[in-house]
Amino acid sequence: MASSGTKLWGGRFVGDTDPIMEKFNASITYDRRLWAADVRGSQAYAKALQTAGLVTGDEMKRLLGGLDTVYEEWSSGHFQIKAGDEDVHTANERRLKELIGEVAGKLHTGRSRNDQVVTDMRLWLRDAINTLKGNSLQLISTMVDRAAAEIDILFPGYTHMQRAQPIRWSHWILSHAVALRRDVEKLDETLRRVNVLPLGSGAIAGNPLAIDRELLRKELDFDTISINSMDATGQRDFVVEFLFWASMCLTHLSKMAEDLILYSTKEFSFIQLSDAYSTGSSLMPQKKNADSLELIRSKAGRVFGRCAGFLMILKGLPSTYNKDLQEDKEAMFDTYDTVDAVLQVATGVVSTLQVCTENMSLSLALSPISFIYVCQMPFREAHSCSGKVVFLAESKNIPLNQITLEHLQTVSPLFDADVSSVWDYGSSVEQYSAPGGTARSSINAQIENMRAWLKTHKQ
Amino acid sequence: MASSGTKLWGGRFVGDTDPIMEKFNASITYDRRLWAADVRGSQAYAKALQTAGLVTGDEMKRLLGGLDTVYEEWSSGHFQIKAGDEDVHTANERRLKELIGEVAGKLHTGRSRNDQVVTDMRLWLRDAINTLKGNSLQLISTMVDRAAAEIDILFPGYTHMQRAQPIRWSHWILSHAVALRRDVEKLDETLRRVNVLPLGSGAIAGNPLAIDRELLRKELDFDTISINSMDATGQRDFVVEFLFWASMCLTHLSKMAEDLILYSTKEFSFIQLSDAYSTGSSLMPQKKNADSLELIRSKAGRVFGRCAGFLMILKGLPSTYNKDLQEDKEAMFDTYDTVDAVLQVATGVVSTLQVCTENMSLSLALSPISFIYVCQMPFREAHSCSGKVVFLAESKNIPLNQITLEHLQTVSPLFDADVSSVWDYGSSVEQYSAPGGTARSSINAQIENMRAWLKTHKQ
Amino acid sequence: MASSGTKLWGGRFVGDTDPIMEKFNASITYDRRLWAADVRGSQAYAKALQTAGLVTGDEMKRLLGGLDTVYEEWSSGHFQIKAGDEDVHTANERRLKELIGEVAGKLHTGRSRNDQVVTDMRLWLRDAINTLKGNSLQLISTMVDRAAAEIDILFPGYTHMQRAQPIRWSHWILSHAVALRRDVEKLDETLRRVNVLPLGSGAIAGNPLAIDRELLRKELDFDTISINSMDATGQRDFVVEFLFWASMCLTHLSKMAEDLILYSTKEFSFIQLSDAYSTGSSLMPQKKNADSLELIRSKAGRVFGRCAGFLMILKGLPSTYNKDLQEDKEAMFDTYDTVDAVLQVATGVVSTLQVCTENMSLSLALSPISFIYVCQMPFREAHSCSGKVVFLAESKNIPLNQITLEHLQTVSPLFDADVSSVWDYGSSVEQYSAPGGTARSSINAQIENMRAWLKTHKQ
Amino acid sequence: MASSGTKLWGGRFVGDTDPIMEKFNASITYDRRLWAADVRGSQAYAKALQTAGLVTGDEMKRLLGGLDTVYEEWSSGHFQIKAGDEDVHTANERRLKELIGEVAGKLHTGRSRNDQVVTDMRLWLRDAINTLKGNSLQLISTMVDRAAAEIDILFPGYTHMQRAQPIRWSHWILSHAVALRRDVEKLDETLRRVNVLPLGSGAIAGNPLAIDRELLRKELDFDTISINSMDATGQRDFVVEFLFWASMCLTHLSKMAEDLILYSTKEFSFIQLSDAYSTGSSLMPQKKNADSLELIRSKAGRVFGRCAGFLMILKGLPSTYNKDLQEDKEAMFDTYDTVDAVLQVATGVVSTLQVCTENMSLSLALSPISFIYVCQMPFREAHSCSGKVVFLAESKNIPLNQITLEHLQTVSPLFDADVSSVWDYGSSVEQYSAPGGTARSSINAQIENMRAWLKTHKQ
Repeated sequence: MASSGTKLWGGRFVGDTDPIMEKFNASITYDRRLWAADVRGSQAYAKALQTAGLVTGDEMKRLLGGLDTVYEEWSSGHFQIKAGDEDVHTANERRLKELIGEVAGKLHTGRSRNDQVVTDMRLWLRDAINTLKGNSLQLISTMVDRAAAEIDILFPGYTHMQRAQPIRWSHWILSHAVALRRDVEKLDETLRRVNVLPLGSGAIAGNPLAIDRELLRKELDFDTISINSMDATGQRDFVVEFLFWASMCLTHLSKMAEDLILYSTKEFSFIQLSDAYSTGSSLMPQKKNADSLELIRSKAGRVFGRCAGFLMILKGLPSTYNKDLQEDKEAMFDTYDTVDAVLQVATGVVSTLQVCTENMSLSLALSPISFIYVCQMPFREAHSCSGKVVFLAESKNIPLNQITLEHLQTVSPLFDADVSSVWDYGSSVEQYSAPGGTARSSINAQIENMRAWLKTHKQ
Repeated sequence: MASSGTKLWGGRFVGDTDPIMEKFNASITYDRRLWAADVRGSQAYAKALQTAGLVTGDEMKRLLGGLDTVYEEWSSGHFQIKAGDEDVHTANERRLKELIGEVAGKLHTGRSRNDQVVTDMRLWLRDAINTLKGNSLQLISTMVDRAAAEIDILFPGYTHMQRAQPIRWSHWILSHAVALRRDVEKLDETLRRVNVLPLGSGAIAGNPLAIDRELLRKELDFDTISINSMDATGQRDFVVEFLFWASMCLTHLSKMAEDLILYSTKEFSFIQLSDAYSTGSSLMPQKKNADSLELIRSKAGRVFGRCAGFLMILKGLPSTYNKDLQEDKEAMFDTYDTVDAVLQVATGVVSTLQVCTENMSLSLALSPISFIYVCQMPFREAHSCSGKVVFLAESKNIPLNQITLEHLQTVSPLFDADVSSVWDYGSSVEQYSAPGGTARSSINAQIENMRAWLKTHKQ
Repeated sequence: MASSGTKLWGGRFVGDTDPIMEKFNASITYDRRLWAADVRGSQAYAKALQTAGLVTGDEMKRLLGGLDTVYEEWSSGHFQIKAGDEDVHTANERRLKELIGEVAGKLHTGRSRNDQVVTDMRLWLRDAINTLKGNSLQLISTMVDRAAAEIDILFPGYTHMQRAQPIRWSHWILSHAVALRRDVEKLDETLRRVNVLPLGSGAIAGNPLAIDRELLRKELDFDTISINSMDATGQRDFVVEFLFWASMCLTHLSKMAEDLILYSTKEFSFIQLSDAYSTGSSLMPQKKNADSLELIRSKAGRVFGRCAGFLMILKGLPSTYNKDLQEDKEAMFDTYDTVDAVLQVATGVVSTLQVCTENMSLSLALSPISFIYVCQMPFREAHSCSGKVVFLAESKNIPLNQITLEHLQTVSPLFDADVSSVWDYGSSVEQYSAPGGTARSSINAQIENMRAWLKTHKQ
Repeated sequence: MASSGTKLWGGRFVGDTDPIMEKFNASITYDRRLWAADVRGSQAYAKALQTAGLVTGDEMKRLLGGLDTVYEEWSSGHFQIKAGDEDVHTANERRLKELIGEVAGKLHTGRSRNDQVVTDMRLWLRDAINTLKGNSLQLISTMVDRAAAEIDILFPGYTHMQRAQPIRWSHWILSHAVALRRDVEKLDETLRRVNVLPLGSGAIAGNPLAIDRELLRKELDFDTISINSMDATGQRDFVVEFLFWASMCLTHLSKMAEDLILYSTKEFSFIQLSDAYSTGSSLMPQKKNADSLELIRSKAGRVFGRCAGFLMILKGLPSTYNKDLQEDKEAMFDTYDTVDAVLQVATGVVSTLQVCTENMSLSLALSPISFIYVCQMPFREAHSCSGKVVFLAESKNIPLNQITLEHLQTVSPLFDADVSSVWDYGSSVEQYSAPGGTARSSINAQIENMRAWLKTHKQ
């Protein structure tokens, strides 16, 4: 047998136990969040034991009653964690035994810590995902409402951070809403993979008793039952998938935040954040920093870090449960908390920011390439004229739309009176009436599409 | 205007052009793989232009004919890339113009490089995903066949890399097959998001002409049409999603490879790879290295690196197209090539490895905790007996299953003749008959389940 | 002005403040760990203010005295955090003002939150690094002592997880110690970059007063002064560098852990962990899981995640301070705590594990290629003989070293009596006497080298 | 023995060899870049063999001569890779044998592929690092020259992307140069760890012959000799360290690029890129996209991906060489090529961009908080006045610096004639004269410091 309490090689003295190791090993400080899921899972298992004839009806009642008490203690904040409670499962068992005695031990029958823990995680994450879905829908709904209300505002669409083509401001809003909609759709898919019952898988080989897994599934409201017990207890794909989902979703919000930070610079001055979401500077009173957006922008990195870290852990592992998997919980909790806050703050920001319509319209740039479409000029001719017209305006130091038709005709005789509509930004955006475009009709169709979709996802 | 050809601050001399910049900027060395998708997309667009009355029927025929020739040149290996062809789109346009003259330029009408490129990528990736799906199904099918054929082989199931509970070898195989099945299901979901038509979105504002996007969708066989043109041209979610899918899929294969490498060590000696998938050592002829499995194991890292790198790029960007997105293609191509090779090599390895049944059975370990179930011993008693029985065997230096009933009864009078079945590994695994377990009936049910699923996914 | 307290677009109601935003913004829950550094930095700044004539001698004394009280309150656990204390700096200021009145505000003179925070972080991290260096040296020292004590133990060196060449067990230990030594050397380099004074850089432009930065440097015991104030306040390279250092260091320990987990499998049975570092299984009493090593193995992933996440944040930022940088602290603290625990637990594991010398020696494999060196056989001949000898042994089902000379000579007449030394593992390892090799003399030289190095790093 | 040429389970047919596996396994397509290092390493080893009496003087001459020919064939582009040349080492050996016959095989004596490959990589990377160092120094030098020449240009320093404090434009340039200087210093440290001789380590156990490693070190110009042979052949720390170095360096350049992209927007209009580094838009002739900067910005992600991917591979490995390490080379080559191009393009961009001095000065914002320093106002009073003055200016719709003294005195009687200097940006920046600040003297000191440093690093 391995010795204990020895200090062979000049290292730290280690007795029968090493307090640093014990702290290193314990998870109660964070996995306590699983308390409700753990009680719920145990109650379902108690019922399955009774159905299988492994506990009596009376024993089952004692188990359920004791677990109800454990639940109440947690929910009222009276549950006492004691020394030796290394995780929430141990804590709940210990307490249950204090409450109802030896019969508590029967909950072990055919259940392993491996299937118990992963069942608790899935129960917890299912609820968490539903909350995040609700938050996402609220944000999208706010954006769609805003897009509908502000459809008249024109905006200097950018590519490469350079003014490109005038669009409707609503078009910009919807471009972000559409990305978040994909996130919700993906979250639904992830949820389907989360909502699979692993209980009844034992440690790896399965359950050796006549446990009715279908009964467990119904009790715990899972969609389906895991197919293979080794996979069920040893995989954490559903966690990684959630972490990656969060990374993508927050990358979308980081992109939107980046746009808004840019638009709230003095130089752009397109929007102004509500005071609740920005901060002044004590040394520089004229400044107003978009702290909320900067924090949102940062969180994609934080959450991706969790995803990358946990995937790196999985990558190095062989099959089945290894203690390395203990890293799953902090990653999952922190990611949930982060996304939950980001979605709510983003909704607050979008709800309350003010648009400086005039500054937007002063920045509209128009592509003279529209000559093609307006004056029926051939592409080649239009392209060549474009350069000349830009040069003409620069040499006269006037905006493009103040060049007279007379001057334009020195560039090409094809210019006619219709050319003035090229400078009319309002009618210009109306050209883009194909589906997905920035014409009023196309925007309205996008809004309709989004509202219909939102309706089908109301929870 | 900005000067050119100047060397202001002691840096490198730069003339009107900088050859290093030009090479840095060009993508033809890798995006040429999009040639077929590019031709196909252009042909569909030519048809839409004709329908919209923007080219005549005759012009359309010339465009289609010229594009056919371009296609044939590529497919026969005769397409000549010339100086100035910075990407495949430019190359195809240049060639088309050589072939049919100025009318080639009409393909630009209302189409932007932004919607063109992303359409090509989606067409390419759709095919790539279908290939990978086929490869995955072949691997899964091979595994299921093997599991069915080798259902009688017993295997010392491990957790924490320590012998845990005897299982059927097929149970191990199926645990990996089930993970790959999830991958195929996710790939189908990803495919749905890939298979969305962006063409007709222009640069950001949409298409300014009467282009029929539904016609384009049908021509190119996309499922749906993108909702918002800014999102359609500026997002690369479908690429990231594919890269992450590959990271997860290869993490599964890395886990399987890790198991198999372990099982092929001299110490385990459970399996032996075919010579085609292992390498000898020139200095150490007795060695046989599992090179194929080590390479498979490494590729999850490679592909994750592509995913992490590209997501980091996206994370730092504002809306719409920025040149940073050019990193999308190499990541996509390299990931496809890697997964394609890994899946085929893995299928080869799994098809041809030999199982050392006897070594597996010599390593079977049984949990004396089965006393609970076999001798109707209470949990507590069983647990306490377990330790004593293990100690007894160690002190006598005999395997557990050679302890006589007489000796066992010195430990507890509850031991009875049935205890011998605890040592009977074959009947032991039969205890685990709940769905997902390792009993023959449960394994057969898993195989049935997988075969039914495979049938619905036959391509 | 931006409105507040409005709910424009159907989003969450947001008043003048949004409690979720406030929580999202606050850092006091974790940055309180900087309390000591913050007090220390403020005391140095008070002295510099006095030297510059910006506060009187008396004011300085009141500032220093008040700060002493703040320090004592924190260190005795009596410091009260109040509502509105969004970070530790605000909390300390608020408390100082309560203690000494308005003069507290003078600490602001010319100091910005930007240079204050980064000064605190550097002071904290400097201490943290010194602690980690001490822990690392203790671990290395333990390993070197163990290598010296167990130099006689032979070990079947592996490549590709296949037995390759016999080495000394000490050679394996030292291979890991050498990697950790590089980590310590890198940590010293990182420390030099951490130990640079940013105070006196203001927000970005520098300090507008006659503050003596050299005096600050001496007071706070920094090595050098930052060169450029924008860089000083806006960069977090020193944090990323530390996070990456930790990722590399823990990857080394993950590799060692992976080896030891393998060696502690039943199949290898080379080592046995002390009970303090392993866990039994309630269901399977014969199992002993290497939980400590599995946790160590996982932590490289956790810490890399922190590094990747924070670098992704930095990657997307423009110059100077942006609120995104607030993610720096949790990453830094968590990484420190993790590495601190891992190093101590690893030292405990290495100090107490027991080596099963006999099992190691039973697994020794020898390369018959040594024929080259022992019997002066040409490479080609030796290589060809190798295969034949392995085949001979397999066909007779005896270990290689039990083949008689007679039999060997049927393979090649070049075999002579010296060949027996090929099977003599003890003398075999002695062949490898070049520097870095596994001969006793080479191992002793390595130990000497390491001990001399350790001596120069004693703290 | 394992079978070959069998197709057991319905998988792909695999004969004695699997062409997909062979391609998967081969590295010649990329590791051919090591050809020069490989020849050089072999020549040194030939000399050491002769010194050790293992080859004759004549044999050594034939080896050296043959290797010279191999070198010439590669450098003149005439080296022929043949089927079966799976890597550059095999190719060189095969060719050498063709040239000089059987004696070529003697190069194997005591050398393993493991120490050969890692020696080649270190030789290659050493040269690569020296090239990158030269490129970095050229970029820094260009930046310092530009900072010196443009010291008079004032610039509206930003934090949170909001105008903060006026600084000198040179201060901004130097803030980036200082970060790159740290990168060069780190690269020197990395180089020291790269420049360690592993040759003479064999596969793991060391070199079994009287090879003089000190002779090898001198021949190949390494600084030191590796301490432990297992570590020497199995670790790739030097590669990861280089990949991470590149990630940090390119993150610095991404930050600078992000600033410059912002400054080149129409809204900021602070700089204009040379045409050689920007691209027009065919559809929008008024646009000028900063493609060069966007590409630079993206590359940090690409390179970080390589780093993350390779570290994930290492994280999952046990000790010593495993085939997974084969991923080291592509990561190393691609990272080098990327950084090499980025540094040169960045130098070109910085050399040639034009500064729009007037636009910068029109954007200068001044903190009225300077009242503290200029009018000797107490902090509190100054802070309160600040807000009022900003409000006054806004209500009159005039710039801050056009408010009359009279009006100011309605806000506070403490305003005096000196206040005008607050609006004098030129003198305002002169306040920041502490080391590292933006006053002319401080900038000059920074320039001096950088130039002295550059001098010591001239190669």
